[in-house]
Amino acid sequence: MNQRPKRLPFSIAELADGVRRGDRAMLARAITLIESTRSDDQELAQDLLQELLPSTGNAWRIGITGVPGVGKSTTIDQLGMNLIAKGHKVAVLAVDPTSSRTGGSILGDKTRMARLAASPNAFIRPSPSAGTLGGVTRRTRETMLLVEAAGFDVVIVETVGVGQSETAVAEMVDFFLVLMLPGGGDELQGIKKGVIEIADMIVVNKADGDNVERARRTAADYRGALNLLMPRSETWRPPVLVASAVENRGLDEVWEKIAEHRSRMSATGELFDRRQSQAVRWMRDMLHERLLSELKARKDAESRIAELEAQVRQGTITVPRAVEEVVRLLIRD
Amino acid sequence: MNQRPKRLPFSIAELADGVRRGDRAMLARAITLIESTRSDDQELAQDLLQELLPSTGNAWRIGITGVPGVGKSTTIDQLGMNLIAKGHKVAVLAVDPTSSRTGGSILGDKTRMARLAASPNAFIRPSPSAGTLGGVTRRTRETMLLVEAAGFDVVIVETVGVGQSETAVAEMVDFFLVLMLPGGGDELQGIKKGVIEIADMIVVNKADGDNVERARRTAADYRGALNLLMPRSETWRPPVLVASAVENRGLDEVWEKIAEHRSRMSATGELFDRRQSQAVRWMRDMLHERLLSELKARKDAESRIAELEAQVRQGTITVPRAVEEVVRLLIRD
Repeated sequence: MNQRPKRLPFSIAELADGVRRGDRAMLARAITLIESTRSDDQELAQDLLQELLPSTGNAWRIGITGVPGVGKSTTIDQLGMNLIAKGHKVAVLAVDPTSSRTGGSILGDKTRMARLAASPNAFIRPSPSAGTLGGVTRRTRETMLLVEAAGFDVVIVETVGVGQSETAVAEMVDFFLVLMLPGGGDELQGIKKGVIEIADMIVVNKADGDNVERARRTAADYRGALNLLMPRSETWRPPVLVASAVENRGLDEVWEKIAEHRSRMSATGELFDRRQSQAVRWMRDMLHERLLSELKARKDAESRIAELEAQVRQGTITVPRAVEEVVRLLIRD
Repeated sequence: MNQRPKRLPFSIAELADGVRRGDRAMLARAITLIESTRSDDQELAQDLLQELLPSTGNAWRIGITGVPGVGKSTTIDQLGMNLIAKGHKVAVLAVDPTSSRTGGSILGDKTRMARLAASPNAFIRPSPSAGTLGGVTRRTRETMLLVEAAGFDVVIVETVGVGQSETAVAEMVDFFLVLMLPGGGDELQGIKKGVIEIADMIVVNKADGDNVERARRTAADYRGALNLLMPRSETWRPPVLVASAVENRGLDEVWEKIAEHRSRMSATGELFDRRQSQAVRWMRDMLHERLLSELKARKDAESRIAELEAQVRQGTITVPRAVEEVVRLLIRD
């Protein structure tokens, strides 16, 4: 399953130059390097990212989630085309930790966003097709840095919302948009716990045909629900809009709200703070993951940890005692 | 600040026996041992817990949170007295990581729960008055095991909800109850994001005097909001009740719901699963915390980590590169 790109026929400096020039072939090659699981490729990838770091961070980073059937592809395709018409360059990435299992990324079929896929001002990249959520997340974050260095000024990160993927996406973007279907009450949505609470905006999509009134009522319900929650930011209350991506109605208002969010968060310094704390949290999470993978790489430690976890489950050993033993297996004296 | 109990005048086996007999003095001494930060005490404490482990796990573990002024003390005092009247033995623990800063635990003043404090069938223990949320949480979990071994069959864990303490408490109990004030919309509650979503029940308290109608409307609002969220369990939709702790109205219904939850979760095996996954998550979190504290204990590593974090904040180093360096500082070759 691992992609094993041929040894690079040029230097990291040349590859970095190519990415900065916006050369799509070089960008694609850089992403392939980042997605490689070979350790020598990973070292090169880190050299490349370090080299490009000063050219990153200039995009609007927007996360989009919603249940299957809510119209994510149509919305991104239409919103992206609207943005390109305004002069933006739009990259679309995906986080889908199941893509290797389901035999195809959610973005594998670029016909899902046919117009964007054909545009020279858009770049669509499917989800890395391997591994844990942590791994997929990491590669998507790194790919985001690459497309920023390549001059894309809007990066949309899409997720189908499997496992913890919405939280992971919200943790890498400036603005998190949740798409909803028109419909009411219980049978509604199957939206996961916590997703509403990390939303910077909710858009009830498919407000077309017979659904217009239902979409408005759904929006009012969510507005009521959001009023009961404390907002993440004192300067931003997540708005609830209705839209029809298929009829391209409401998407300009969606974008205006995103722009308003950006200018307000920039003015208060919250955008800067959000990105800084995302970076530090990423560092901590990744450190945790790396330490655990170090543990698992030791055959003796791995089987012992499994035993200790089983004992913790059965309640035959206290958690502190189990942890102490694991720490002694791992740590340098 | 650290409590330094005198060396134990008896063996761990004798202390364990005392706890199992329900001897309050021995129980108090055991808790003091667990709260000690001396490393030799910690070793003894772990021996004690290991010894008592087979006698633990038999209580109903109930978490209660709510903003200051919502009536937590009155509710716990009254609910506890009702339960004692039914033949239960009730322990009340607290999680308040700020208690050492604010100069007194939320439970420091036992007059807050005057009747419970005077009852031979209740045991009230203030929050451990030191340290991080992780430390407080750990000691509360361990104290919970001790009071279970001492025969208390209802353990109420109270938290004022500072930082992440609600989540920490929800992670150690079978049932998580959120108390609310009557009142509507925005100005309401200041309840933190995510708390509603981990609630197994919401109780709008202070439904007395002029507030009865307002409490009912608030309950209806929350019922509507909860309908928009996906429940944590397929077999349990969190109910929203109204109550007046001060008039002892509604608390029997509250307990009936808690009992219904327990019998349903026991029947489906969800209670067992919940406790198992709590234990495993606790093990993982504690492992993470221990590894980080190992890092901090190394002077060289600590200052280097601070530098790397600063560089990550400034965006002058990539996260994977920073993490790699930290891992190399820490890990046994």
